[in-house]
Amino acid sequence: MRTRAAVALQAGKPLEVMEVNLEGPKAGEVLVEIKATGICHTDEFTLSGADPEGLFPAILGHEGAGVVVEVGPGVTSLKPGDHVIPLYTPECRECEYCLHPKTNLCQAIRETQGKGLMPDGTSRFSTLDGDPILHYMGCSTFSNHTVLPEIALAKVREDAPFDKICYIGCGVTTGIGAVINTAKVEIGSRAIVFGLGGIGLNVIQGLRLAGADQIVGVDLNPAKREMAEKFGMTDFVNPSEVEGDLVPYLVNLTKGGADYTFDATGNVQVMRAALESAHKGWGESIIIGVAPAGAEISTRPFQLVTGRSWRGTAFGGARGRTDVPKIVDWYMEGKIEIDPMITHTMGLDDINTGFDLMHKGESIRSVVIY
Amino acid sequence: MRTRAAVALQAGKPLEVMEVNLEGPKAGEVLVEIKATGICHTDEFTLSGADPEGLFPAILGHEGAGVVVEVGPGVTSLKPGDHVIPLYTPECRECEYCLHPKTNLCQAIRETQGKGLMPDGTSRFSTLDGDPILHYMGCSTFSNHTVLPEIALAKVREDAPFDKICYIGCGVTTGIGAVINTAKVEIGSRAIVFGLGGIGLNVIQGLRLAGADQIVGVDLNPAKREMAEKFGMTDFVNPSEVEGDLVPYLVNLTKGGADYTFDATGNVQVMRAALESAHKGWGESIIIGVAPAGAEISTRPFQLVTGRSWRGTAFGGARGRTDVPKIVDWYMEGKIEIDPMITHTMGLDDINTGFDLMHKGESIRSVVIY
Repeated sequence: MRTRAAVALQAGKPLEVMEVNLEGPKAGEVLVEIKATGICHTDEFTLSGADPEGLFPAILGHEGAGVVVEVGPGVTSLKPGDHVIPLYTPECRECEYCLHPKTNLCQAIRETQGKGLMPDGTSRFSTLDGDPILHYMGCSTFSNHTVLPEIALAKVREDAPFDKICYIGCGVTTGIGAVINTAKVEIGSRAIVFGLGGIGLNVIQGLRLAGADQIVGVDLNPAKREMAEKFGMTDFVNPSEVEGDLVPYLVNLTKGGADYTFDATGNVQVMRAALESAHKGWGESIIIGVAPAGAEISTRPFQLVTGRSWRGTAFGGARGRTDVPKIVDWYMEGKIEIDPMITHTMGLDDINTGFDLMHKGESIRSVVIY
Repeated sequence: MRTRAAVALQAGKPLEVMEVNLEGPKAGEVLVEIKATGICHTDEFTLSGADPEGLFPAILGHEGAGVVVEVGPGVTSLKPGDHVIPLYTPECRECEYCLHPKTNLCQAIRETQGKGLMPDGTSRFSTLDGDPILHYMGCSTFSNHTVLPEIALAKVREDAPFDKICYIGCGVTTGIGAVINTAKVEIGSRAIVFGLGGIGLNVIQGLRLAGADQIVGVDLNPAKREMAEKFGMTDFVNPSEVEGDLVPYLVNLTKGGADYTFDATGNVQVMRAALESAHKGWGESIIIGVAPAGAEISTRPFQLVTGRSWRGTAFGGARGRTDVPKIVDWYMEGKIEIDPMITHTMGLDDINTGFDLMHKGESIRSVVIY
């Protein structure tokens, strides 16, 4: 079939919206009509050329929602008409990782996914001239139709709006999951969130959901304050307004350091500050942000020997097919909010505007509606 | 009263054995006759002058066992004749730290202890001329008699030999506790221990006690192999005999990385290798060793984002008054071994020989018997 997609032809260039060929689903695969997709910093990271593992030409996008159109042989858990959210971290429920209680990093299709291919080692996308176009993070939601493995689709309720729940495909789950699945924050905790963008705001509402007593937000941009307070932030700290070092200021503000700190910036210096502002004895610091290639974190080992832990999270520690439908329910039940974070919407033809808004820092999330 | 002690008069000089004055116990304090004391690397670290927080003149030693001689006013949990092990990490059971489920770092007397003083801000030791001599780590077990706060003494069974259980005051508990309290290693785990000295051997027997399936020991000294195998090591790796990089070799040996890795070297490069040889998704790396002043650990944050955790431990995460008596029981019941690790014994007059043996790498543990 033919479908319309925004294609990343090469690094550093705007996406080009064009007709592409899409082969139907093979065994274990599912054809999905994408109804809406968010534009995430990770798409930008790859498109910019900064991602050393970025491959081109490819159809980017990994934060979508849509409807099953057709299933390939052997697919049993989905049928045409089902509403789904694509999962860049799949959940096969069979591999060593899925069967381990401490991780969500299903490895069933990792190797081919990393190469921009379906599990059989080929791509379903091609140009109208027949040249292959690569998949991206196993999702390629910047295409109106896409093919995914069955294990990379979460089935969700049908009354949930696509243009909101698409955000659960990455940002919402990453932020809330970091609190709930990775840190396992307890009621009454004190926490610090570094970076109040699309992930940081979701960490904040995750902390509110978990019953944290103090939720400190740290950002250089004072304009972030208002929205973060709406999501549950109790204290705002602008490092440029702090006299002296930031870490002792934050330790003092949290009465000895935070029980949990979260880096949602990707800056390795901020990651260090996040660790060191965690409480002696038991503070845990969780890295969510993706650092530039080659960047390293560092600290004195004394920080760990005196009881702090340094950890990380990917996709919020969520097992997608199991956890994403629950988060959709939480949204529909009003336990979490998404609408205020979706600051801009646009059609596929205007997708590059979404990247422009991100560069200017004007959007929290732009969503493309097909 | 007068007692005999090995006094560290200044950094970098041998200890001097002499008579000293010791004041009796004040409120909440206990006078203990030390029967035996181990000589630990931490004593050497301070004596050498490398410890930036080292203070002189002081009576070092923190790995002892002895008998209560006299108790000060208000002491209720101990009486003369009780057998005790001094605790450089006390357990007051009242401070914010003792009441927190995730730490053993009681802070009740930390400030004065760090200054070489009893909780009232004074020292009980002085020269025969009346000049004060400082306490060390709240213990000063290189004195035949010493005074400690009640909260810094674990009461242990009376049939346990002092010259063996003194080692539980630091090395045994630090190594076994890192496995049991900090890492909480599960039956069937794979583990790697870096450094097969007095701490590393105890990590190994802790892993055996915890039911680990694979216990890899890493050390540059092939002479460490035999003893480590006796304590439960299943695989020995000498980095100088590995072709290529150590980390991929260890990852391969442990079928994808170890569930738990332990640094017992204090070398920050080894700490990095320990983290990176932990299993993707769930591997935890525990820092036990004390690094040189100013040294920093570093890694790519990707190591944490893909599921590894970096943690540390002090005194094996043990709450001394609660846990040390249990470890003494384990020794007496044959669940753990100590005797083969105590390679040398000597009288107080020969204590400097113990430091010489440590420098030459000839001892695992030297114990001074009074």
